[in-house]
Amino acid sequence: MPYTPPEPSTRAAMIERVKFNADGLIAAIAQQHDSGEVLMLAWMNAEALDETLRTGRVCYYSRSRKGLWRKGETSGQVQTLVDARLDCDRDAVLVLVDQKGVACHTGRRSCFYNALRPEGIVEITQPEIAAETLYGKG
Amino acid sequence: MPYTPPEPSTRAAMIERVKFNADGLIAAIAQQHDSGEVLMLAWMNAEALDETLRTGRVCYYSRSRKGLWRKGETSGQVQTLVDARLDCDRDAVLVLVDQKGVACHTGRRSCFYNALRPEGIVEITQPEIAAETLYGKG
Repeated sequence: MPYTPPEPSTRAAMIERVKFNADGLIAAIAQQHDSGEVLMLAWMNAEALDETLRTGRVCYYSRSRKGLWRKGETSGQVQTLVDARLDCDRDAVLVLVDQKGVACHTGRRSCFYNALRPEGIVEITQPEIAAETLYGKG
Repeated sequence: MPYTPPEPSTRAAMIERVKFNADGLIAAIAQQHDSGEVLMLAWMNAEALDETLRTGRVCYYSRSRKGLWRKGETSGQVQTLVDARLDCDRDAVLVLVDQKGVACHTGRRSCFYNALRPEGIVEITQPEIAAETLYGKG
């Protein structure tokens, strides 16, 4: 079922109800909609959440670059929105997505690859795409 | 496969590598290990993460109560740890759990029940247990 964006007034009313933190951000969990795999955790400000809901392409807020981070804009690894769900406190959002390629900047499908095991931190997956391929060498 | 805790020195070395934020916290996503359902987002400090890894029972840090929050201690809705995975930046942790009963304080299985739909915010699940049953009436 293709994603249908809410109207601007509906989006504004939704975003009004979100509890952004002192930095104006909400935690966003991306999950592959069909497999259930948790891909990454990032942050959104009101503008990023509105753009995500409006376009159906997931957009975060980069705390390091201090600006909108349109996922896949550089790497091509876009996230198409399937559904977005606020939690009970409305200070976190779960975005169900269709992830093209890989979510992680290391070239792995998911960012959560460092398992805490009896023998120590174990990398349970390997990169599927080289970081140089994702971001170029420059 | 039952959870095997790492030795104290291994846990200390792991926690040394975690990037806690300015408040000494890391975001923790709880996911039901077999169904893939994302249950909740909460926070852990070093002590909560160490207790979680040591005991195999998930323990968070409550920002409102400013103390350890042993999930299910009051409600009985405990989370048994199956696996814990840090992300690429080591500033978020995914805990794969076996959730007894419900994760959400509203009595819902998952906290992420407020879907952002064209018609507005839609509650897509209903409580399975009354909040009064979970926490008493006092």
